[in-house]
Amino acid sequence: MKAAIFHASKNITIDDVPVPELRAGAVAIDVAWCGICGTDLHEYLEGPIFISPAGHPHPLTRETAPVTMGHEFSGTITALGDGVTDLAVGDNVVVEPYFVCGDCAPCQAGNYNLCTSMGFIGLAGGGGGLSEKVVVDRRWVHPIGDIPLDQAALIEPLSVGHHAFVRSGAKAGDVAFIAGAGPIGLLLAAVLKAEGLTVIMSELSSARKAKARETGVADHILDPSSEDVAARVREITGGVGADVCFECSSVNAALDQLFDAVKPAGVIVVVSIWGHPAQIDMQRLVLKEIDLRGTIAYVRDHPATIQLVHDGKVDLAPFITARIALDDLIDKGIRTLIDHNETAVKILVHP
Amino acid sequence: MKAAIFHASKNITIDDVPVPELRAGAVAIDVAWCGICGTDLHEYLEGPIFISPAGHPHPLTRETAPVTMGHEFSGTITALGDGVTDLAVGDNVVVEPYFVCGDCAPCQAGNYNLCTSMGFIGLAGGGGGLSEKVVVDRRWVHPIGDIPLDQAALIEPLSVGHHAFVRSGAKAGDVAFIAGAGPIGLLLAAVLKAEGLTVIMSELSSARKAKARETGVADHILDPSSEDVAARVREITGGVGADVCFECSSVNAALDQLFDAVKPAGVIVVVSIWGHPAQIDMQRLVLKEIDLRGTIAYVRDHPATIQLVHDGKVDLAPFITARIALDDLIDKGIRTLIDHNETAVKILVHP
Ligand SMILES: NC(=O)c1ccc[n+]([C@@H]2O[C@H](COP(=O)([O-])OP(=O)(O)OC[C@H]3O[C@@H](n4cnc5c(N)ncnc54)[C@H](O)[C@@H]3O)[C@@H](O)[C@H]2O)c1
Ligand SMILES: NC(=O)c1ccc[n+]([C@@H]2O[C@H](COP(=O)([O-])OP(=O)(O)OC[C@H]3O[C@@H](n4cnc5c(N)ncnc54)[C@H](O)[C@@H]3O)[C@@H](O)[C@H]2O)c1
Repeated sequence: MKAAIFHASKNITIDDVPVPELRAGAVAIDVAWCGICGTDLHEYLEGPIFISPAGHPHPLTRETAPVTMGHEFSGTITALGDGVTDLAVGDNVVVEPYFVCGDCAPCQAGNYNLCTSMGFIGLAGGGGGLSEKVVVDRRWVHPIGDIPLDQAALIEPLSVGHHAFVRSGAKAGDVAFIAGAGPIGLLLAAVLKAEGLTVIMSELSSARKAKARETGVADHILDPSSEDVAARVREITGGVGADVCFECSSVNAALDQLFDAVKPAGVIVVVSIWGHPAQIDMQRLVLKEIDLRGTIAYVRDHPATIQLVHDGKVDLAPFITARIALDDLIDKGIRTLIDHNETAVKILVHP
Repeated sequence: MKAAIFHASKNITIDDVPVPELRAGAVAIDVAWCGICGTDLHEYLEGPIFISPAGHPHPLTRETAPVTMGHEFSGTITALGDGVTDLAVGDNVVVEPYFVCGDCAPCQAGNYNLCTSMGFIGLAGGGGGLSEKVVVDRRWVHPIGDIPLDQAALIEPLSVGHHAFVRSGAKAGDVAFIAGAGPIGLLLAAVLKAEGLTVIMSELSSARKAKARETGVADHILDPSSEDVAARVREITGGVGADVCFECSSVNAALDQLFDAVKPAGVIVVVSIWGHPAQIDMQRLVLKEIDLRGTIAYVRDHPATIQLVHDGKVDLAPFITARIALDDLIDKGIRTLIDHNETAVKILVHP
């Protein structure tokens, strides 16, 4: 079968690889669609980052590069391993793409997203979604009912947004302010709207502001290059400030604006991944009693996230900006995201 | 009557001032003891900081320097204003030294410690504890029963520790790691011990390490100059890391150690006041899902704090390192703290 294999940076090829063998407790899935994630770009440009380099096998999969890529995928079950009785061949599913140890303190505390030897399917080995078929342990397979398979490929990044929402402690009626309307900021906004919040977004790129406008996920779209966004947030909230803020840009200036825009005793959730330290205004953190919280991936978020899409509270269709074949992964997928990343939200690959 | 009056930086004098007039809804207090706080030192050295300078009256008191100092005090009620029926002349009390507006969003949300025009008795005007007598609105007066009046003067900074504990969400059985064993770190440790936590402290100064040892507030005392404190915290916690951490040093290197020492999904409370921005490791904040929380002063903490002392769960006596007369405030009080601040914990002034 065909699969996108990461060999080294700038070296991802579509190779012919053996079909993965079904094992007890797992299911075989024919992949329908797989999204390309920012992490995949980073691996392509500068990897291996999350992928284990030669000589340093992943502690759980024992694999190193070359590995199959792709962790945002949907598909249809084609076979059930021994002991799997609560799913059926033909079920459409998405995958929560984890490998976790189950033994470390975070796993024992139920925070398997913080597993000290955590790995992702599609990065750590064990196959991936950028291939025709994949075998995944039952635990990580979530049925999606009649959600269209293309939209379902976006449930993984939508779950990132759902988990950020859970981490924020926000509730219906609250006002949220999101810095950055990239794919993550937009999908988070979709969750927040579905959960009954008022959503304010700030974004520099006009194409992304247009996307936020046309998808209807934001009630207010602000431009930090032409207005004082924190003052605008205070204006919109009657002088109070936002109840919760979300950093989705990895830009320190945007983080500073959140410190300014959040209400006293408010929460700022950092979703973005930073390659460098951040400078924060400690005086404000203390005197306003701000909570600055990290959020990573998802933990028990898939069922609720799937429900939001199933109930029509989130429409994922507008976030799909292209559909390509696996053979076009580099040229029409990864390169497009690198070169025109402002208009592309999610590019789906059909293996 | 005599009172310590702030005129300008390096210019605090003991002046003769009029006795404050009792008003409806307030009580008249003869001050027994008043502690000297780090804030008082800063006002002396570089003020006015919290004190309103000439031309900029405090929004609530309408006062500017010169003002009476002192906000950590205990005393005895000598008269009750009209309408005060639930206290009695002769009651020993402490004061939660606030002026708040009651109208702003934080006040309306119950977070009066975040009042947008908040002021402190002893800084914002309205008299202070470094004087023979003071008149305080009933709302801010807390009876202390038979707690000795000298120890009671430490209830204000102990409430800072109590509020930091509340902000942390910690519970009995948790392991706390505190960076900095100054007066605030030590009193916070006393609260945490009283609440049933295991307490680990790090501190550079030998005098302060000795104080932490002799008061029994810390189970483990670490020295960042001679050991890897984060590794030691992991060792003590069986590899897990501290459940909650408290930054009480304003030193970035110490904050970094807390990011390292806290367990995944753990909480770091910043108690310290920073004159400059902090650099934080965002990668760690996100990948460990750390909560970094500011804490300021106290809000509804006095009753529980008083109870801890009343029940003998916190013994404040060992934290009193000197008792001086009001006339000696500068020479034996403020100058001692500036020059020998490692051996002094709390210097009490008897006006
Ligand atoms: N925590 C997690 O689990 C998780 C999961 C996936 C992605 N991420 C991270 O989330 C972040 C966002 O992902 P993405 O794919 O949307 O990234 P992206 O780079 O496509 O989007 C960032 C957006 O921020 C905008 N921006 C830049 N400066 C700004 C400013 N001053 N104010 C407002 N907006 C500004 C950019 O124009 C861009 O549109 C990345 O750092 C990514 O690594 C985190
Ligand atoms: N948030 C609030 O409501 C509130 C209230 C009162 C005081 N404060 C602040 O709390 C902080 C502590 O107050 P304090 O009076 O105890 O101050 P302090 O300066 O007396 O104590 C700080 C201690 O930190 C130690 N230290 C320095 N570097 C260290 C390191 N690398 N590791 C461990 N310890 C280190 C110092 O030796 C010192 O003993 C101050 O910043 C003060 O302004 C905050």
